[in-house]
Amino acid sequence: MTRPRLVLAYSGGLDTSVAIRWLAEEKGYDIIALAIDVGQAQPGEMDRVRQRGLDCGAVESLVVDAKEEFANDYVGPAIAANALYMGKYPLVSALSRPLITRHLVESAKEHGAAAIGHGCTGKGNDQVRFEVAAMTIAPDLTVEAPIREWGLSRDAAIAWAAERDIPIPVKKDSPYSIDENLWGRTAECGILEDPWAQPPEDVYERSAALVDTPDEPEELTLRFVEGVPVEVDGQPLPLAALVAEVDRRAGRHGVGRIDMVEDRLVGIKSREIYECPGAVTILTAHRDLEDLCLEQELAQEKRALEGRYAQLVYNGLWFTPLKRAIDAFVAESQPFVTGEVRLQLFKGQAAVVGRRSTIGLYDESLATYDEGDAFDHTQAEGFVKLWGLPTKVWAQRQGHVRQ
Amino acid sequence: MTRPRLVLAYSGGLDTSVAIRWLAEEKGYDIIALAIDVGQAQPGEMDRVRQRGLDCGAVESLVVDAKEEFANDYVGPAIAANALYMGKYPLVSALSRPLITRHLVESAKEHGAAAIGHGCTGKGNDQVRFEVAAMTIAPDLTVEAPIREWGLSRDAAIAWAAERDIPIPVKKDSPYSIDENLWGRTAECGILEDPWAQPPEDVYERSAALVDTPDEPEELTLRFVEGVPVEVDGQPLPLAALVAEVDRRAGRHGVGRIDMVEDRLVGIKSREIYECPGAVTILTAHRDLEDLCLEQELAQEKRALEGRYAQLVYNGLWFTPLKRAIDAFVAESQPFVTGEVRLQLFKGQAAVVGRRSTIGLYDESLATYDEGDAFDHTQAEGFVKLWGLPTKVWAQRQGHVRQ
Amino acid sequence: MTRPRLVLAYSGGLDTSVAIRWLAEEKGYDIIALAIDVGQAQPGEMDRVRQRGLDCGAVESLVVDAKEEFANDYVGPAIAANALYMGKYPLVSALSRPLITRHLVESAKEHGAAAIGHGCTGKGNDQVRFEVAAMTIAPDLTVEAPIREWGLSRDAAIAWAAERDIPIPVKKDSPYSIDENLWGRTAECGILEDPWAQPPEDVYERSAALVDTPDEPEELTLRFVEGVPVEVDGQPLPLAALVAEVDRRAGRHGVGRIDMVEDRLVGIKSREIYECPGAVTILTAHRDLEDLCLEQELAQEKRALEGRYAQLVYNGLWFTPLKRAIDAFVAESQPFVTGEVRLQLFKGQAAVVGRRSTIGLYDESLATYDEGDAFDHTQAEGFVKLWGLPTKVWAQRQGHVRQ
Amino acid sequence: MTRPRLVLAYSGGLDTSVAIRWLAEEKGYDIIALAIDVGQAQPGEMDRVRQRGLDCGAVESLVVDAKEEFANDYVGPAIAANALYMGKYPLVSALSRPLITRHLVESAKEHGAAAIGHGCTGKGNDQVRFEVAAMTIAPDLTVEAPIREWGLSRDAAIAWAAERDIPIPVKKDSPYSIDENLWGRTAECGILEDPWAQPPEDVYERSAALVDTPDEPEELTLRFVEGVPVEVDGQPLPLAALVAEVDRRAGRHGVGRIDMVEDRLVGIKSREIYECPGAVTILTAHRDLEDLCLEQELAQEKRALEGRYAQLVYNGLWFTPLKRAIDAFVAESQPFVTGEVRLQLFKGQAAVVGRRSTIGLYDESLATYDEGDAFDHTQAEGFVKLWGLPTKVWAQRQGHVRQ
Repeated sequence: MTRPRLVLAYSGGLDTSVAIRWLAEEKGYDIIALAIDVGQAQPGEMDRVRQRGLDCGAVESLVVDAKEEFANDYVGPAIAANALYMGKYPLVSALSRPLITRHLVESAKEHGAAAIGHGCTGKGNDQVRFEVAAMTIAPDLTVEAPIREWGLSRDAAIAWAAERDIPIPVKKDSPYSIDENLWGRTAECGILEDPWAQPPEDVYERSAALVDTPDEPEELTLRFVEGVPVEVDGQPLPLAALVAEVDRRAGRHGVGRIDMVEDRLVGIKSREIYECPGAVTILTAHRDLEDLCLEQELAQEKRALEGRYAQLVYNGLWFTPLKRAIDAFVAESQPFVTGEVRLQLFKGQAAVVGRRSTIGLYDESLATYDEGDAFDHTQAEGFVKLWGLPTKVWAQRQGHVRQ
Repeated sequence: MTRPRLVLAYSGGLDTSVAIRWLAEEKGYDIIALAIDVGQAQPGEMDRVRQRGLDCGAVESLVVDAKEEFANDYVGPAIAANALYMGKYPLVSALSRPLITRHLVESAKEHGAAAIGHGCTGKGNDQVRFEVAAMTIAPDLTVEAPIREWGLSRDAAIAWAAERDIPIPVKKDSPYSIDENLWGRTAECGILEDPWAQPPEDVYERSAALVDTPDEPEELTLRFVEGVPVEVDGQPLPLAALVAEVDRRAGRHGVGRIDMVEDRLVGIKSREIYECPGAVTILTAHRDLEDLCLEQELAQEKRALEGRYAQLVYNGLWFTPLKRAIDAFVAESQPFVTGEVRLQLFKGQAAVVGRRSTIGLYDESLATYDEGDAFDHTQAEGFVKLWGLPTKVWAQRQGHVRQ
Repeated sequence: MTRPRLVLAYSGGLDTSVAIRWLAEEKGYDIIALAIDVGQAQPGEMDRVRQRGLDCGAVESLVVDAKEEFANDYVGPAIAANALYMGKYPLVSALSRPLITRHLVESAKEHGAAAIGHGCTGKGNDQVRFEVAAMTIAPDLTVEAPIREWGLSRDAAIAWAAERDIPIPVKKDSPYSIDENLWGRTAECGILEDPWAQPPEDVYERSAALVDTPDEPEELTLRFVEGVPVEVDGQPLPLAALVAEVDRRAGRHGVGRIDMVEDRLVGIKSREIYECPGAVTILTAHRDLEDLCLEQELAQEKRALEGRYAQLVYNGLWFTPLKRAIDAFVAESQPFVTGEVRLQLFKGQAAVVGRRSTIGLYDESLATYDEGDAFDHTQAEGFVKLWGLPTKVWAQRQGHVRQ
Repeated sequence: MTRPRLVLAYSGGLDTSVAIRWLAEEKGYDIIALAIDVGQAQPGEMDRVRQRGLDCGAVESLVVDAKEEFANDYVGPAIAANALYMGKYPLVSALSRPLITRHLVESAKEHGAAAIGHGCTGKGNDQVRFEVAAMTIAPDLTVEAPIREWGLSRDAAIAWAAERDIPIPVKKDSPYSIDENLWGRTAECGILEDPWAQPPEDVYERSAALVDTPDEPEELTLRFVEGVPVEVDGQPLPLAALVAEVDRRAGRHGVGRIDMVEDRLVGIKSREIYECPGAVTILTAHRDLEDLCLEQELAQEKRALEGRYAQLVYNGLWFTPLKRAIDAFVAESQPFVTGEVRLQLFKGQAAVVGRRSTIGLYDESLATYDEGDAFDHTQAEGFVKLWGLPTKVWAQRQGHVRQ
């Protein structure tokens, strides 16, 4: 009798390495380990991850390079929507989870698997993102959550793995729980759990400490076409390469460190450290260009929807009709967002120092106080009178109520 | 026959100095010049401004120190509401205009004046702020806008003043139009009108150029009680003094420069340069402490209202019932915002590196991945299933529609 | 050894009657049955409910008349907030659940009980409302949900009760699941589960069928003071009595039937039939008076918050800081809502035919097109020009993009 | 020398009839009268209007039948967006103004006209709608507003016309100012200006008085495909014909009378009487079908945007990028809105009594309390616990603050 197959989202780390064996032993699955490269890996690393999957007992071990797909289909819309959860977090992991789920589901269909699996715990957001995505694109697939179900502590897992000679990759020197991709890097656990304690420098990898940054500012010009960054300093680049390049350059200047207390969907607050040099730089530029290019009523309503959008992506609702509807709103606004933004990278900051667009709505002849002023000042008087009329009537009739 | 009196908001600058004479000659008023110190003045400067008012032809010239009032009644609520127009501008001038209007009205009543006046042009926001505020608190007073009505260019105004020996204060070296108070400093005009051009260093006064900032980071701890900052590094200070102290220290590190294209109520975009070392530092800390202290549904709705609040203050609707209603919402949230925030000032940044509160909602026993975890992981499964249920039903029934 | 005590929210119906015995047998509690009158009971009925609690095995059986409390502390704020879930449902049950929970908790403290209990199933909203309310006001009390835990079907429950001679109140002729209070009546189940089928007439009790309504319209005038209805046709009444009186009169005319498909928090859609003659009439009048009395920016923002408010009350978040913050916003608006509304009750409708207020913001001298017009038409031109300016600039610069 | 031409939006009424001559005499234009039929006209009436234009002095007089265009391009999107200003007014006139402006502009181009003109006063919304629409689609055309500029009272206009033998159409018995089209009819002025006075029956034309309505209810079934109503009682109809048919049938039952105090963009409140039997019936059905067919998060956000949408259409911002962006959001939601709605028309009401859809999200197997229940009740416990967790932590940590 053949055993049912399960495609597991495999990172090569402790939890999913142990989960391969546990799912085989306890749940009776043949495991297909699937590792997705969304920009987290060093050259050669994905090959080692694939081999480790086999060593841990997977019947098959696969690697997919999804960097371009991640950039174009997930990071791109997030840029358009200026997606920052709680105004701060660029949704690093939240963006990759639906992509990974899509690949798990596709691979499960291809390999005739009855289930997919993820290595998330029961208190994080990622379990929600994997499972709600799976419910949506493959409502009939079983989803296994071995780590949540098993409930092992880290030490117990290491002991369990040692008993079975599972070749787990415990880096002794990394006390943090890390997730990483093209769009950024996230760290939690350990000393970080005290929100009053300053994060130690060893938590960071992609951004230089300010003391180690160059003492000269570096200028960087981003060109956007219809909301998408397409050139760095005049050099056209595909989005994945562009994000990586900006990330590298901004990281060298210590840009993109985010230290925050975050509201999780499962009802708790957690302290999170993110490093997103590229994301912070690109989003800063994109928002600035929108200030130049978007009509003000549109801009205002878009800002209001952006918070909702970031929240729904954070909460795992990527493949939902609301997500598609907000994307449609945003897509209608982006054709106007074409132009260039000059940034200065220096000592932890990516500061915009200039922006221009051939279709920008800034009209110097209207804005200037110098000669050439085309603004009709006399219209202002009527405007002010009617703009203030509701307040004036209110003051006359109701101003005395509970002042 | 006595001439009617008019109380003019007097800054000591070119426009209002000329306006004194113009209102007297053309409109037949006796002018009372009223200069309000909201934190813009150097020691002794207000005395010179008062004298200049008389020299320019005012029948009376008055000075009011409103720094404490400005801090407590205008800046305080703005901190509570994290008020940033377009997510960027701390509303420096927008906050002072209703205060100045209130003093104009009071002074007009005291001196039996028939009118008040301001020196705004017809294309800015300040005319709206003065006039709508006046309509609300004194719907029967006449408001004169000599600069808007007269429509003189700067050069013509200088010539007109010279003919009459009006002692105007033309600083040859200041090509910008400046407004300043405790909460920040704003500059526009001249070279700044090209949004692609980087602002020259001479536009800044309150923040050091990054090249001139200290090479060592400086730590600063702010203590908030019920949303109001009350201590700097353990030292209790009244709000006005506290803002000034934080402004000075953050400014030394180059914090608080804002370069933006802004949507004015009168329908145009303008390029603005703000310097707000204190405001940026305090707002950064306040928002961070809220992340620790506000329940998540409250926090989310408050963020949505904050944009609306900043917009209405920007648009001159300070003395309106909507402003009061949002203030009431915000006031209900602030009793929870008590605690301390550690910031690191360095090279243009005020970065939060720690926060704590005895009533913070971060619960380490729920958040930790270590021993002592009090979170019941098994509840998560049911939660995820029901959280995803609407999406799942949608996928089953409608997923095929327009995929 | 004494058994722990549990205070059960007791309705006298099948489920909670059976639950008394089940909790005693299976969970080892001594049950205190607590029945709350929030306006659902006929005279004498609460006495019978109390007796039935004892007959079913409760060690104590209590009845509380909470009609006034319900009206003042729950219905009043809902009127102020025009609370209608999905724009339709006046939150009948959602408003009573926090009140009932408050009494359960108080009674548990008074009687030294270790737990409280409710008779809700696992797929409705009421379980959430009871339990989240309890978590908030008594986070340390255990909450039992016998019906959800036991999972018995209706028929099985009847059989189980028969075996034990539990005197259950099965009305043979009521195939619906009913909840009722001062603010309305709700029905679900049975034939109603087909959303295409018109509800049979026997589902209704508080509103006359249109064929049976009077053939003459009836006028009803409601007077509000600060947002609260205080008089019917000139007759002052306490709120509970006023709601009952309006309910009776409007119900006679068939007003207040609501037939809707509703989104439950637990992720499913359900078909619900509500009868709320009083609620619909009072809310219609209150909204109309607000149109007369609220300044337009305030009115617009209040409307936006009302949807959020109804949703949070529906979702069981009554005792939360967000609820209190929105209440504070709303409370700031209600002092202006004083005046009278004339309604015509006729054939299922409560139509407003007139409204007036001594502090209304309608100003005939501004609105009139006749003589006496005080509106300055010439101001309109400047207003229109600046109002349209952003759109005009957009059209000139970007109108060609993706038309 | 040839006189410049002006295309005037011509209704055949007093104001625009007089304006033809005034624009010719005072402004020196040759007038082209353009009358647009958006459903307001009786058969033959448009011919008489055209003739009257010539009689009043127009050099050319044109009539356009725009009923289908109005239905498809203006009413259709308004249905999709459930557009009701202040939750009540279906935007009758607001929808026709941009269409009329589009035709004025097109006609001006075709006839080489230098200007267009409208007959609005300075205190209404229509001047804004005409002029902002014109600024957007033809920023270089001059717009004349003769009635606003001239400022004549009604009596003076009649006298002026009489002096010149202008054949004005003063219906002695119509004391109201009327605007009408396919989507409804609006009345203001005269006795209606007292918001306490019940409107006299003579103000209504398209809806029967309740005393005159049939004593039997009438059932009407509407079928929608992707949000557009396409069939009445199984009979396919183009949208314009469908709206007219539903209007006629619902009007016979007295459906669609709206009596409200309205907030105008120009800052005043006005009392308005609308008659919209078709609009009210169709919107009621459309909203009901959405409750069945839209996923709940999408539905909730759409409801929030609908208020904004109605407001911007009311405020004349039809041809703006924000309008297009919200349309894109709405368009993404409508493919799911396919199905049928049964309504009962009776005594002033259009009540939904059933709805169905092959892709509806109501799932009887999830919703039922009977056998066949597919809902897993045990998941609810975990859901409730995590749903309430933020509130519980808040209660424990902050519940004591300002209770």
